Amino acid sequence: MDITTVWEKLAWESGGKIIYLIVDGGAGLPDPEKGGTELQIARTPNLDELATRSSCGLLELVGPGITPGSGPGHLALFGYDPLKYNVGRGVLSALGIDFELQENDVAARVNFATLDDSGKVSDRRAGRIETDLNRRLCDKIQDKVKLDFEGEFFFQTVSEHRAVFVLRGAGISGNLNDTDPQTTGKAPRDPEPKSEDAQKTAELVRSLVEQVKQILADEHPANGILMRGFEQYKPLPSLKERFNLTGLCVADYPMYRGVSRLIGMDVVPKPGGMKERFQALEANYGEDYNFYFLHVKHSDSEGEDGNFEGKVKVIEEVDSLLPRVTALNPDVLVVSADHSTPSLMSAHSWHPVPVLIAGKYARIDEVERFDEYACLRGSIGLRPATHLMGLSLANAKRLRKYGA
Amino acid sequence: MDITTVWEKLAWESGGKIIYLIVDGGAGLPDPEKGGTELQIARTPNLDELATRSSCGLLELVGPGITPGSGPGHLALFGYDPLKYNVGRGVLSALGIDFELQENDVAARVNFATLDDSGKVSDRRAGRIETDLNRRLCDKIQDKVKLDFEGEFFFQTVSEHRAVFVLRGAGISGNLNDTDPQTTGKAPRDPEPKSEDAQKTAELVRSLVEQVKQILADEHPANGILMRGFEQYKPLPSLKERFNLTGLCVADYPMYRGVSRLIGMDVVPKPGGMKERFQALEANYGEDYNFYFLHVKHSDSEGEDGNFEGKVKVIEEVDSLLPRVTALNPDVLVVSADHSTPSLMSAHSWHPVPVLIAGKYARIDEVERFDEYACLRGSIGLRPATHLMGLSLANAKRLRKYGA
Repeated sequence: MDITTVWEKLAWESGGKIIYLIVDGGAGLPDPEKGGTELQIARTPNLDELATRSSCGLLELVGPGITPGSGPGHLALFGYDPLKYNVGRGVLSALGIDFELQENDVAARVNFATLDDSGKVSDRRAGRIETDLNRRLCDKIQDKVKLDFEGEFFFQTVSEHRAVFVLRGAGISGNLNDTDPQTTGKAPRDPEPKSEDAQKTAELVRSLVEQVKQILADEHPANGILMRGFEQYKPLPSLKERFNLTGLCVADYPMYRGVSRLIGMDVVPKPGGMKERFQALEANYGEDYNFYFLHVKHSDSEGEDGNFEGKVKVIEEVDSLLPRVTALNPDVLVVSADHSTPSLMSAHSWHPVPVLIAGKYARIDEVERFDEYACLRGSIGLRPATHLMGLSLANAKRLRKYGA
Repeated sequence: MDITTVWEKLAWESGGKIIYLIVDGGAGLPDPEKGGTELQIARTPNLDELATRSSCGLLELVGPGITPGSGPGHLALFGYDPLKYNVGRGVLSALGIDFELQENDVAARVNFATLDDSGKVSDRRAGRIETDLNRRLCDKIQDKVKLDFEGEFFFQTVSEHRAVFVLRGAGISGNLNDTDPQTTGKAPRDPEPKSEDAQKTAELVRSLVEQVKQILADEHPANGILMRGFEQYKPLPSLKERFNLTGLCVADYPMYRGVSRLIGMDVVPKPGGMKERFQALEANYGEDYNFYFLHVKHSDSEGEDGNFEGKVKVIEEVDSLLPRVTALNPDVLVVSADHSTPSLMSAHSWHPVPVLIAGKYARIDEVERFDEYACLRGSIGLRPATHLMGLSLANAKRLRKYGA
């Protein structure tokens, strides 16, 4: 029994407002040289004060031992079990650049990459080329590639080395392997079809990859592409349909705007840097929405770069801006993360993330610090992240009683 | 959704080595006269030191309130949900004596027992007869019993009072009740069929039991048999197929070698006593395997005998040998138990067992003792035991990221 479907039946239209402040990859591992995790080392007087008047705990995003991508991580926090609502990076990336995906479009995430003379990947991100160069290359590809297909395709810039490929037409499928080998020193992989009905799509993708290689032959460092997360777009049931929530997303990165749009949230256009995002939340807080998602990206980026101090700084910046959120006095304020990104590992990880729920009806516990260890002793316990939406709805008095 | 099937999709071939050190029945209940549990009273400096640099927690083996047999307990630790992968004791015992079970064979565990004049059980283990006597009795039974059946049967010694019965042929089923009443003072029970297709097998077993009673009429103390765990053999998907693990089992008791073989592990032949088993692990540790299962049996036997001090001694012996395992420097070292066997109860019990996971990426917590209480405050929390395999794979970096 998927417990989230019970909330669907119990959620009514009345109740309070909920804010989710999600610090991407905010959790980590203790670094012996630093004497703690990033959250433990960061000076966070505001978060800690908030923790003292919250219910605290830990969330496991997708399942034990499973390292979540950011898409699945966020879906879990929003009450969509990622094992049930399986959405690929391609679809999320397309939605994130405001691309109007139509049902059954096949989307894939693209990296511009550097290939060496033997065709092997020497840089999976082509030195993180400028977005302007990316735009020029996408235009070139869109212009010159010809696919033997009655439908159409779109090749569009996201940012830096990131682009999106969308295929639209009859008889296509997203059931293909990535061409991205996820490592350097290897050639891009074949987009092998994983089922019979993906044969044709695989051929189209092979042809695309081959033509792009010719078209970019003289470009440097972006002389090839890597594709991953092929997926056929099927819209998900919205937050409104499921939980009677009208949501607003304040996020700067395409992925997060994408996942929000996928579940029917409105999205603040290009809110900008961290401070601007907190301001955008303030500016949009009101009667039009009852669910607000404020996203902080750079905690994850610094973690992925193995920059412990950098991640600590991002967390401290979040802390300094937190009073702007608490000043809005939402009925329920949630702070959590979509996965751990320990600087020690320079990668996402499976370790559970701390969570706090502040609100009039939270069962306040003894936790006085917002970190991976203090929250272990909180009243929420260690739970699947999908539980968070139910607890948030309940704390906002948005769920009817079950039975009489 | 069975989360273990998600790891199947995410497990790749690369990653580190995992050692499971399983202290059978190692957990218990506090004895008021002793001032703690067996694990609390035992002097375990090495285990405790290991706990200080591990993630700790508690595992529930089969489910809340469910007392596991050793088979289900181990299957859970290996990531096989025992409610889904239901294997009877008979099949495990047969595998454990290197009996080459064929698909659809029906196996049962047999105890030689003492029956009184009225046919009631007076000793369920026939005074733990010598293995040599067991062999003579098995030969006699194999020789003299005639079953009205076109297939064949096998009646083979395990050790002491333990034997195995295997039925091979068409139209048989393992869906029978045990004849073992699990207590003295009662007559053996009828092997009642639990489904229509087990009628014929039930008749064959009734006939076997009756003939054995005649054949052993003059034997003492082993003048009867008790049978349990009837099961039709269906091989399980292997650790290699499921999780890309090549496993080696170092265990002395047939049951544990059996469960290991059932999931495709290689088994060290007759490793011998506890010290010899630790040596066998050392001798076999290398490039051929990436998953090692080292089993300690006597903690359970002492617990079942109600011998608190004896169990404490076994735990202390494990502790003294632990440095030989840590010296191998595996990427992931797990210490846990397949169930509790509180000396106070002289039996297996449902109480969760402590677990520790040591490794470079473990989220080290504040726990400084390996016991049932200290581990409650660990970062793993209290979880189903099936989660352990996912956490172990993750810590060994043997799982891909989920989604993008």
